[in-house]
Parts: sequence; C-alpha cells; structure tokens
Amino acid sequence: LNKKYPDVFFQGVKKPFKSVIDVSSGDPHKAGMPPISFIRQVMAVCLYPELLKEKSLPLDVRQRAQKLLDMCSGGSVGSYSTTSIGLPEVQKSISEFITRRDGGVLSHPEDIILTIGSQKGLSVFLNLLTSGEGKTQTGVLTPMPCPHTLPMLLDMTGLALVPYRLFEEQGWAVNLDELHRALEAGRVHCEPKAIYISNPGNPTGYVQDRETIEKVIRFAATNCLIILAEEVHQGSVYGQDKEFISYKKVLSEMGKTYAETMELVSFHSISTAYIGECGLRGGYMEVVNIDPAVKKCLNFTPSAPVLPQLALELSLNPPRPEDSSYNSYTQVRGLSYALEFLNRVEGMSCQPSMAGPFLYPRVHLPPHMVEEAKRLGVKADVLYCQRLLEEEGICVGAGCENGQEDKNYHIRHRYLLIDNKINQFHRSFCEAMLTG
Amino acid sequence: LNKKYPDVFFQGVKKPFKSVIDVSSGDPHKAGMPPISFIRQVMAVCLYPELLKEKSLPLDVRQRAQKLLDMCSGGSVGSYSTTSIGLPEVQKSISEFITRRDGGVLSHPEDIILTIGSQKGLSVFLNLLTSGEGKTQTGVLTPMPCPHTLPMLLDMTGLALVPYRLFEEQGWAVNLDELHRALEAGRVHCEPKAIYISNPGNPTGYVQDRETIEKVIRFAATNCLIILAEEVHQGSVYGQDKEFISYKKVLSEMGKTYAETMELVSFHSISTAYIGECGLRGGYMEVVNIDPAVKKCLNFTPSAPVLPQLALELSLNPPRPEDSSYNSYTQVRGLSYALEFLNRVEGMSCQPSMAGPFLYPRVHLPPHMVEEAKRLGVKADVLYCQRLLEEEGICVGAGCENGQEDKNYHIRHRYLLIDNKINQFHRSFCEAMLTG
Repeated sequence: LNKKYPDVFFQGVKKPFKSVIDVSSGDPHKAGMPPISFIRQVMAVCLYPELLKEKSLPLDVRQRAQKLLDMCSGGSVGSYSTTSIGLPEVQKSISEFITRRDGGVLSHPEDIILTIGSQKGLSVFLNLLTSGEGKTQTGVLTPMPCPHTLPMLLDMTGLALVPYRLFEEQGWAVNLDELHRALEAGRVHCEPKAIYISNPGNPTGYVQDRETIEKVIRFAATNCLIILAEEVHQGSVYGQDKEFISYKKVLSEMGKTYAETMELVSFHSISTAYIGECGLRGGYMEVVNIDPAVKKCLNFTPSAPVLPQLALELSLNPPRPEDSSYNSYTQVRGLSYALEFLNRVEGMSCQPSMAGPFLYPRVHLPPHMVEEAKRLGVKADVLYCQRLLEEEGICVGAGCENGQEDKNYHIRHRYLLIDNKINQFHRSFCEAMLTG
Repeated sequence: LNKKYPDVFFQGVKKPFKSVIDVSSGDPHKAGMPPISFIRQVMAVCLYPELLKEKSLPLDVRQRAQKLLDMCSGGSVGSYSTTSIGLPEVQKSISEFITRRDGGVLSHPEDIILTIGSQKGLSVFLNLLTSGEGKTQTGVLTPMPCPHTLPMLLDMTGLALVPYRLFEEQGWAVNLDELHRALEAGRVHCEPKAIYISNPGNPTGYVQDRETIEKVIRFAATNCLIILAEEVHQGSVYGQDKEFISYKKVLSEMGKTYAETMELVSFHSISTAYIGECGLRGGYMEVVNIDPAVKKCLNFTPSAPVLPQLALELSLNPPRPEDSSYNSYTQVRGLSYALEFLNRVEGMSCQPSMAGPFLYPRVHLPPHMVEEAKRLGVKADVLYCQRLLEEEGICVGAGCENGQEDKNYHIRHRYLLIDNKINQFHRSFCEAMLTG
C-alpha cells in the first residue's frame, strides 16, 4: 500500500513507520486498491478511439466505448456536452437504471441532472434553499452522526444545522420521536425547510427499511420539508436480509397525494461504488416534484464535463453475464466483499455495519484521557486520531467531524487490513495515558 | 463533417441539406475535427495504466502518462484530488508554464486554482463580487461585443453589465476615452468594481499591445477596479507581428506600486487551444494580489476533478522537439493554421482577425430586411441566422448574443470551409428580401 511514499517526517523528525495509510475518507485508490478494469478500459478507448481497433481489449469494452462515443456531439468526448445538465443519452440511460432499480417505478430523463460528484449537486441545491437570517434562516434537519463534510457545507452555504440524533444503541436507526423533538427545537432559532437523509447511512452503515422510510416521508410531508436523500452507498449493501429501497420508490408507492407532491432530491455518485472512482467526479441528482423554474437553476456549470458522465453511465450499467468482461468485473466485486466483515476491534465497540465503506466504532477512552485532551485544548477523539497518525501512520477520521458531540467518542475508517495495528495502538495509547 | 447526423427535419418538413454544421461556438470536435493524438493517448494511458506496457504507443506518451500518474494520490486518477483547488504538482507545472510564457516573471503555484473550464472559474469569482441592489449593485465593465455567454452569466449572478464599446472601425481595439465614458455612465446606476477584458478578443480576434494594456491597468488602478482578464485564446495568435502579452506580465513590469497591489485574475482553458478540448472542461485561474481569505472561497467544488487537470497540464506542456510525438503534434497545429486566413466573405465586411477561432463579420442588411424582422418580432441578425440554418443547415451566432446592439449587424462563426455556402446564402437572402 502506498509504496511510493518516502519515509515520513513530521517537523523534521523521522517517524516510526514507512508510509501513511489514509483510511479517513472512502477513497480506495488513495489507499492503493486497483480500479475496475472494465470502466477504465472503456474510458481509455473513448479518449483515444484508435483503440477501438485494438483486439487485445475485450469486445464488449470496445462496443461499449462506441456506444458512449455515439452519445457525444460529433462522436467525441472533446465536444461540449449538448446541454448544461448533461448528455441527453446519458440522462436517458441513468433514468433507465433507476427504473430498473425501483422495480418499474418510472424515472424521467429530464429529472436527471448530472453533477460533479454528489456533494457538488448537494451544494448547488442547498444554495437555492438559503434565505433569511436569525429566526428566519433556512434550517436543514441533519442526522448526527452525518457525512463528515456536511456540517462545513451547511455552514458555508449559510444554512442552520438542525441536528437529529441517531442512537448507537438502536444500531443508528432513524428515530421518529427524535425527529419531532429536533424539529421543535430547530423552530426556536430558524425555519427548517429540508431534511437530510443518509441511506445507507454514512458513516454508520445503517440501512433503512420501508416502514421507516414511509414514516420519514409522512413526517416531511406534514412539516413541509423537502427530502434530500443522499443514497450514494445504495450499491454496496451487504448486511444479511438487508436491501436498499430508494426514497423515490417508497414515495411513489404511497399514493398520488405523496407521489405527485412531495419534493425529493436523490443524490448518487461514482465515488462510492465498491471500488469508487472518486477522482473522476461523476454523480447525478434525480429531482422529483421539483418546480421546473427551480430545476432551471440547478445547472451547476455552463457545460457539464463529458468524462464524468460516461464514467457514471458505465458504473451504473456494468457488464452483463453474456459480456466478455463480466467475469473479471465480478471478481473485483468479490474482492471488496472480502473486506467487509472486519467488524470488531478489541477495546472498542462497533454496531454491525450493513452497507457502505465505513466502520464507525466507538472508542472507550478513560476519563483521565478526556481530561488530558481538555488540558491540551483538543477534543479527545481528535487527540486519539493525531496520536494514531503520529505513531502508526494511520489516518482515521475523528467522530466529531461527523457531528458527533456527545460524551462518547468514535472514529471513522474505511475497511482495510489495519485493524490489528489499530488494536495494538489503542491498548498502548490507553496504557500510556494511565502512566503518563 | 458530422456524417452521423440523419437527414434533418424541422417540424416534420425535410430540409434541403443532409446535416447541420454548427459553427456558432468554438467547439472543433462537434464540427468534426479530430483531436490531438498526443493528449488523448496520454490520457488513455492514465486511465488504463496497463497501456504503459503497450509498445505501439510512443515512448514519450507513456513516460508522460507515468509522470502524470505520479502527481495523483496513490498513483491513480481515481483518487480524490489532494486539495480542493487542484493537485499541487499540477499547480506547480502550470505556474512554470506561466513563468516561461511571461519571460521569467514569477508565477506562484498557490495562486493557481484549477477550474472546470474558464467560465466556471469566472462565475465563481463573479459570485464573490455580487452585492447591493439598485445604485449599490456591483457593476462590471464589459466590452461590446463580448463573449456570447457573458451577458447571461452576469445577469444570472446578479451583477450589472456596464458596457464599453469596441469600435469596428478601430479594428475592435480598446478605447480609453470610451472606458472613461462607460465608467461615468455606469456610476449613475450601479457601483462598478471590476473590468472584464477579453484578450485576444472574443469574438473579435483583436490582440492588445503593451501600451494599451498599461493604460487599461492604470485606468483600473485609478478607479479601484479588479481586472478580470479572459486570456483563453493566448495560444492561438497568428496576426502578423502580433504577440500575446499577458496582463500579469505587463502589471509586474510597471513597478512595485502596481505589481504588488493591483488585483488581477487571469482565466485560461483547454477549450480554446488550436484543437480545443471543450468536453474535458479543464481550466485555471491565476489570482494575483487577491486576499487569501477571498482565495479560500474560490474552491468551486469539494474536490477538483482529476482528469481535467491532467488534460490542462498536457495542453500547456506539449511535446518538445526531442520527443517522439513532436512531429505529429506540430502537423496538427499546421492544419489549424491553414484555416485561419479564410477571412473575407462577399457581401460582408470583416476586420482582420489576429487570434482565436472566430470570425466576426458585419453583415450588410438592406433597410427593408430590418423592417421585415421588426414585423416578425425578431432582431434582424437573429432572423438572418435562422434563415441560414433553415436553408443551408449552417448554425452561426447572431451578433446580438455578443451584446452588439447598434445599427450594424454581425454574425459569429468558427473558421471552417463554409464561406462559399454563406456567400451564396447571403446573396439569395438579400435578393429574396427585395422581391418578397
């Protein structure tokens, strides 16, 4: 892993490890995992169409590349995207993916807006929600813990974060009573107009069931909240008897009143697949029941980049069993499955994750350590992460970045074979704190 | 050209041409021109590194791909960009390009912000300038004619367009008296805080000389205007004895007072090279003397897409004479040179263009045609463009899109071998109008 890193120095001091392993974000390539050949091969052919003649590349790769090139103006990835929200043929292909995924519930190409990753789409939409100040400031109901980039995004956009807690002892499920409490509490200082949902949950890995989703939709409808459904980990559910059900599907099966009026935006991205392609920045929003005038404002750039659209199309429509690339593609998926069950680290406790790339274990820190952190002016989970980085070269995320602000401490890390190192560190860290 | 278009129908009526040729934008690939192999080959290898072993690809292509991969986290284009404004090594490479271009005037990597095309960068910067309303609304001095996407962009951002005219009879040069007039006129209804410069001029093809640039800088300094220098056609100057001189270079040679205080942002893009790569959306802003706090707000996306950065790096650092791809690269450049001198179309008059992909000829329309357009409720240049599209299948841009609102009419089109068609159309159009 990361064999290219030189010896690591920190402020001139040589560190006791050869390289830094960053597992704080869901970036598999940074951590040294190889990409899925199929996606990369097709994109290489799209960029350099001479490779269409290259017989050493699988036939389905070349056929797929030709199909994607035909979606581009002038048959080239170098021409502007036909419309600023995306290539019409890509919009169509994505809506077909969604219709398949949702068992026939129709998705409309004109509701698909191509984005540079899900976060960019979200930030554009949040911008449109921004208004007021003080008690009239727009608020967004936000799960705690939440994706670690969300609190800053809300802050930068000028929106009030209205926290609703997910309870660890309930496996991080959404709790309706807590939603009501949070809304009332939020209304004291702002005007909540949207609810942010992360399903499967980031960083918790919790997958919502149909009943919960129905309740959340009714709650949002009663309280005039737009639903912002971050569903980027939909493709990596592995919990036993768990399945991803989209908010869109449930909504459209709750009868006309809900199906035709509730405003819903669903976000997806290629950064979050089994082997996500984070650097390519492909994503989409599906906007349901959103006013056409608002949709018009969602064009995030004068012309949507072409390559991320193609990568997204590929990622959502992988090779089929009859395609020559099918076997190699499914092998890679199997590999990432193998990483999914490294669940418990000694000295910590962790809710079983059902989906997504993260583990979010609770670290049990003795009170004197919390005191020590206070003395140093940092949060205890941040101190823990700093020491883990300095001593083992492993970079994990502190739970406070995910908005977790209670007396318990958490860390967030991507599945990797680092658990033993963390285990050792945790023990010696707690011991050093006792004696130090 | 566009041989893949089917027969063209308009509201069910078959048209007298086989395909539509769109030369209204500067998009060469849409118009059927082949890409530069070198750029596409290197990018294909970056996406699918197995091709590093492919001996049929030139050695310098594979070496360059390896160099670019080394700039990426984990050696993969699939990992997140290290910082949200770009890969540090790409920033460094671009600043080196600028330093070379400006004959040694230093450019600093931390002043380079990677963008998804120049327009996206511009729109982010304009957003930061937006404030006030009515007489306190921020205004931007804007050339007329200007890039055809600019008026809408200013409008959408909530900025007041303060027009300064470029005069056709002066070859579309910037006129200092006109700048003073425009500023005074603008101050009546808004607060001008920036001046937008297009050099080489879009769509005029005019290249500014050092003396003019100095005067514009002094004018901007005296009046506390930020200079927004759109310099995207810097790489395609072909007018005799004309050379591109950057605003940055002139500024830094005008002495400390100017060099260390004048706020300047220069925009560049890969969409506008000889054979631009519009769909890849690569660009940068160089921000000079901009407050660090403002720079911090210029991160346009949570993580800059990686591929556009690599395409930009390649485009600014083409093969050198000693590289195996050098010959094929310069041949393609030669081809695009050959298109540059198709300058005059009968029945029109056109200032000689010195740079960039556009011609911006004046179309001399008889008064009764202008009346006819008025009767139909359209602008005369728009009517002209509509008819040219319907009758010949050629799509050119109407001058009014470039903000041109005087009694003269213009069209904007990319160099292509269509002049004879336009010539024939122009004659029959004017005749039909006389008899019709």
